[in-house]
Amino acid sequence: MHAIVKSRPGPGFDFLLDAPDPQVGPADVLVKVAATSLCGVDRHVYDWDQAGQAFVPTLPRIPGHETAGVVIEVGAAVQSISVGDRVALESHLVCGSCMECRTGNAHLCSRQTILGLSRDGAFAQRVAVPASACYPIPDGVSLEEAALFEPAGVAVHALQRAPSLLGQSVLVSGCGPIGLFLIELARIAGASRVIATELSPGRRLLAERRGAITLDPAAVDVPTEVARLTPRRQGVDVAFEASGSPRALGPVLESVRVAGDVVTVGHPGAVSVDISKLINVRYLTLRGVFGRRLWETWETLGELVSTGRLELAGFIDDRIPLDALPSAIAGIGDSGKVLVIPEDRS
Amino acid sequence: MHAIVKSRPGPGFDFLLDAPDPQVGPADVLVKVAATSLCGVDRHVYDWDQAGQAFVPTLPRIPGHETAGVVIEVGAAVQSISVGDRVALESHLVCGSCMECRTGNAHLCSRQTILGLSRDGAFAQRVAVPASACYPIPDGVSLEEAALFEPAGVAVHALQRAPSLLGQSVLVSGCGPIGLFLIELARIAGASRVIATELSPGRRLLAERRGAITLDPAAVDVPTEVARLTPRRQGVDVAFEASGSPRALGPVLESVRVAGDVVTVGHPGAVSVDISKLINVRYLTLRGVFGRRLWETWETLGELVSTGRLELAGFIDDRIPLDALPSAIAGIGDSGKVLVIPEDRS
Amino acid sequence: MHAIVKSRPGPGFDFLLDAPDPQVGPADVLVKVAATSLCGVDRHVYDWDQAGQAFVPTLPRIPGHETAGVVIEVGAAVQSISVGDRVALESHLVCGSCMECRTGNAHLCSRQTILGLSRDGAFAQRVAVPASACYPIPDGVSLEEAALFEPAGVAVHALQRAPSLLGQSVLVSGCGPIGLFLIELARIAGASRVIATELSPGRRLLAERRGAITLDPAAVDVPTEVARLTPRRQGVDVAFEASGSPRALGPVLESVRVAGDVVTVGHPGAVSVDISKLINVRYLTLRGVFGRRLWETWETLGELVSTGRLELAGFIDDRIPLDALPSAIAGIGDSGKVLVIPEDRS
Amino acid sequence: MHAIVKSRPGPGFDFLLDAPDPQVGPADVLVKVAATSLCGVDRHVYDWDQAGQAFVPTLPRIPGHETAGVVIEVGAAVQSISVGDRVALESHLVCGSCMECRTGNAHLCSRQTILGLSRDGAFAQRVAVPASACYPIPDGVSLEEAALFEPAGVAVHALQRAPSLLGQSVLVSGCGPIGLFLIELARIAGASRVIATELSPGRRLLAERRGAITLDPAAVDVPTEVARLTPRRQGVDVAFEASGSPRALGPVLESVRVAGDVVTVGHPGAVSVDISKLINVRYLTLRGVFGRRLWETWETLGELVSTGRLELAGFIDDRIPLDALPSAIAGIGDSGKVLVIPEDRS
Repeated sequence: MHAIVKSRPGPGFDFLLDAPDPQVGPADVLVKVAATSLCGVDRHVYDWDQAGQAFVPTLPRIPGHETAGVVIEVGAAVQSISVGDRVALESHLVCGSCMECRTGNAHLCSRQTILGLSRDGAFAQRVAVPASACYPIPDGVSLEEAALFEPAGVAVHALQRAPSLLGQSVLVSGCGPIGLFLIELARIAGASRVIATELSPGRRLLAERRGAITLDPAAVDVPTEVARLTPRRQGVDVAFEASGSPRALGPVLESVRVAGDVVTVGHPGAVSVDISKLINVRYLTLRGVFGRRLWETWETLGELVSTGRLELAGFIDDRIPLDALPSAIAGIGDSGKVLVIPEDRS
Repeated sequence: MHAIVKSRPGPGFDFLLDAPDPQVGPADVLVKVAATSLCGVDRHVYDWDQAGQAFVPTLPRIPGHETAGVVIEVGAAVQSISVGDRVALESHLVCGSCMECRTGNAHLCSRQTILGLSRDGAFAQRVAVPASACYPIPDGVSLEEAALFEPAGVAVHALQRAPSLLGQSVLVSGCGPIGLFLIELARIAGASRVIATELSPGRRLLAERRGAITLDPAAVDVPTEVARLTPRRQGVDVAFEASGSPRALGPVLESVRVAGDVVTVGHPGAVSVDISKLINVRYLTLRGVFGRRLWETWETLGELVSTGRLELAGFIDDRIPLDALPSAIAGIGDSGKVLVIPEDRS
Repeated sequence: MHAIVKSRPGPGFDFLLDAPDPQVGPADVLVKVAATSLCGVDRHVYDWDQAGQAFVPTLPRIPGHETAGVVIEVGAAVQSISVGDRVALESHLVCGSCMECRTGNAHLCSRQTILGLSRDGAFAQRVAVPASACYPIPDGVSLEEAALFEPAGVAVHALQRAPSLLGQSVLVSGCGPIGLFLIELARIAGASRVIATELSPGRRLLAERRGAITLDPAAVDVPTEVARLTPRRQGVDVAFEASGSPRALGPVLESVRVAGDVVTVGHPGAVSVDISKLINVRYLTLRGVFGRRLWETWETLGELVSTGRLELAGFIDDRIPLDALPSAIAGIGDSGKVLVIPEDRS
Repeated sequence: MHAIVKSRPGPGFDFLLDAPDPQVGPADVLVKVAATSLCGVDRHVYDWDQAGQAFVPTLPRIPGHETAGVVIEVGAAVQSISVGDRVALESHLVCGSCMECRTGNAHLCSRQTILGLSRDGAFAQRVAVPASACYPIPDGVSLEEAALFEPAGVAVHALQRAPSLLGQSVLVSGCGPIGLFLIELARIAGASRVIATELSPGRRLLAERRGAITLDPAAVDVPTEVARLTPRRQGVDVAFEASGSPRALGPVLESVRVAGDVVTVGHPGAVSVDISKLINVRYLTLRGVFGRRLWETWETLGELVSTGRLELAGFIDDRIPLDALPSAIAGIGDSGKVLVIPEDRS
């Protein structure tokens, strides 16, 4: 089959015309890929920087983990999924029997593998996964929209870790794709005002188009401006950190009102937090997200998209064929989403 | 001053040109009434039926409890409110020192009095209340909208007793004013679909205009229809009972999915609930609301209205002068809200 | 193998010396039963009353659902359990793929079967179940104690549905085995006082031995007495209804303080609840339990028993051999637990 | 009256025989002090180190903030408290009208003053406070025990910020008085095991006497040992940081299982937290405490002590007269509590 392969250490991806077809075990399904969305993680793998090397333990590897398609083959033991089913794939493949899987936290499975990183992914015409990783796409949701469920689910998960946003003021730090999903979801969830911070003028514009008041953290003092914009509480009720920048977190924490909530979505690494002032005396609650809750996050997202409350198509910026990916990836920005569309030769 | 007075037992209200002005104690403020909204409770007091008699322990009494105005006098001990402040009034006047007041449940104060029922209310040119009952109206919210904070607050409180509605399906039983507030708020809070039940075709139309799918409980089996409209869960995630009809509650409970939530807003009295089937095996959570949380509910509502997320003006159906109330009350429906506007003679 | 069998409609159980051995499918394990505890449900099946007939859809059937033993055979596809493992069995056998199983509520699985009722159970020398129904018994917990995890888990689940009991006053209605588990657990969880109601003097004595203040609902007005015993709140913070008596629920609800919680554990059927007074104005939260949360309830219970915080051995009243069950069941009370011990002939 | 006074900058306290009596405003009460407990904060004020200077904005100042006594005079406007009432004092004196006071977070009042720091305190024969700062001591609780409600309340508050501890494993970092309160409360709340870390051998012994397994962080790697002691989860369910040491927090966070909770009670200042690893991927929830919830914390504590579940007398190490405080304070350790007892000359 056609596939993108990370064949060897060092920068680059190869486009292969004759990659071997995935093997389908008795509990697996084979999915004909309809669309796979590009993620910042793919860029790290392409560049083979430190993060990219940490994500991918062995080579060769087919990348691609935000994907949807149609089931074209099912293993002998599969009962819940049938040939012809339209499915989006959970990229975190979990064991189902460890302590986390047994106690409602399967997304934290201690034995999970990740599609496109620690097992072959979906920048290919076909991908094989356990049937248990399939989310049946609700009627009225296109395969292209379904390919965005994986990244949009991270944002939905972030809202599920926060109190209800009805009538609450919200800060979103960082206006990449996840930040834009958060802005849109905060508005849908009834936030009274959404403030967003972002260095890039282009992304600030996208945030403003979705109704956010934007701040440039290079130009203003974020906590001061947020306090001015939230006169009754002198800070937002809930903040989401989605920039992944270590420098962003401090101002975010200081922009939240007393007894407010912070959810970290980005991955800034180790950051200094003033425990005395923020966590004790200002009484903040700090939580993060990883992946999507199985399957509460998917069900909520499916409802939002299938009923038209959340329109995912508007987040798609471009579509490219599989063989264009290696030359295109370096030039791709990350504020909207680019879909990779394998040609149909099945 | 001009005032409506319930002077004696039996049906009727009197309009007085020379009602005595309220006395203003050291902790009180005197409010010039801008608008007072009519409530179904007022009709019970007018009719002097069993409910009306239960609400009003002694006569004479000036009714009216959904109100807003401008402070024109403050008692000697008042510090938090000033002359000229625009305020909406919490109708439940609480003691501040009982166990409920001391533990975050002041709305359940065991010594509370209620404006217009157990103390003189706001169908009058002026009303006196403790300064602690005043909610300062945020900028950008009109006095007429503020008069609706009291009833709209009951609906906001109902949402505060339920899980987040983001991506959830919702049933609203009864499309009177509270039901319409609930429909609007559920939509604002991100509900994926809102189903409403109502016997009256006119009210069903109002519900549909706010985006609800409506059912006539006299014409269809509500649980069957709700299951059809929610194919993935075979029931809504959250239901609000706002009809107050004892017959409505059973079908509402049966229309909720396994492990869902029910909030009762209406007051149906004693109703048979199948504890084994619904509360144990179907694992529902049943909660109710009374009044508004002091002051979380008001703050949330203030944010929603002042930022334009919730438009209350659209709920106002009519405005009448104070002296028109006795002749008009019997003909007033209860799907939209009617504001009573005292003439300005202060 | 030796087994108790419900062979035909009508009262009675048969003891068979030559019941066929259970069939072990590829995902199943075969367990040599060490002890199976008697439950009130078993008595209904024995008597073949209306409840018994409702529980058991087809005959013949081997009853018994509170059990533990040692794995002596595993199916070809089983990976998580090995021969020699000591296991307690979850009696609710769930599908793993329905909406409830996928969203953290597997105990409410819409396709579940129940051991000893809708599939053959553990009043036998051997029982076969899916490997996914096994709870590996922690070190330091005996097989006999583990046989009590199923019923004790219902009480643990009830506490998991209530707020923290630290420093809270608690009412337990009904002092059968589940009520006694609740009394013991409430004490362990830091309840400041535990009040228990029970008609039987013998069971009241057992409750008192575990530290409860007991009331005879035939002799006193329960809400009045509870208010007297809880002078600061005039009602308990949390109540558990475990009698299953329809008449008990009303007084239980009236014995809870404003804004308190009620969890129903027993199955009283349809009961009249004053929605206006209790759920709205007194602001109670009403919840129930069914089964045990998979596997949060089991893990909590395992920790409590393996660390000696909860001593289950003291709840065992008697041990009888398998062939004594038919003649003994009618005379067995239900305040303590009786273990049925199959002879070892494996 | 007799009083300890911090008269001027620099180390030291003065004992005065003729300090002026406190002035009693119309909303105040005058309390004859029965006992005031020494706190580590008092030592900072005595030493006049950087922390001490930050706590006390102006001099002279009477210190002492953990206190109980009997009301001997009430202001003209006081209704809820009477002469003769036994009261413990909340040390955080709140305004009652700011946004935090109005929304259930009075302990975070933006205008609060603190007894013994920003207003005169209770190392004196008499102290005046607003009646609203008084907690009426329940029957059966001594005045000396009541003097410990303020510090013990911080530990109760910490448990109120954590999930239920029933059957959970707990880590307490630091075995000073607050740590010992936490150990005792965790046991009372049903924790399956309590692990405590502490550098001082003497304090470790006190922790062991209360049932904790202790670790010396100078001798072992805390996360490794905690994982060994919690084999099923490889980490505790809930951790409380009460040492206030910046170096302690990292190992505490690494000792918590995936999806566990951390509550910070001590004040370590700014500490580096690995947001990616701990808050996102390990999905911890981080919260802190400040003061006590008004008045939920006091009510819970009152129930625990008055019913004998929590015995506070055992935490009292020593009693000294007022005039002995200046010479004794430097030699006082902080593992148990020392009560300062003014002579009775009223």
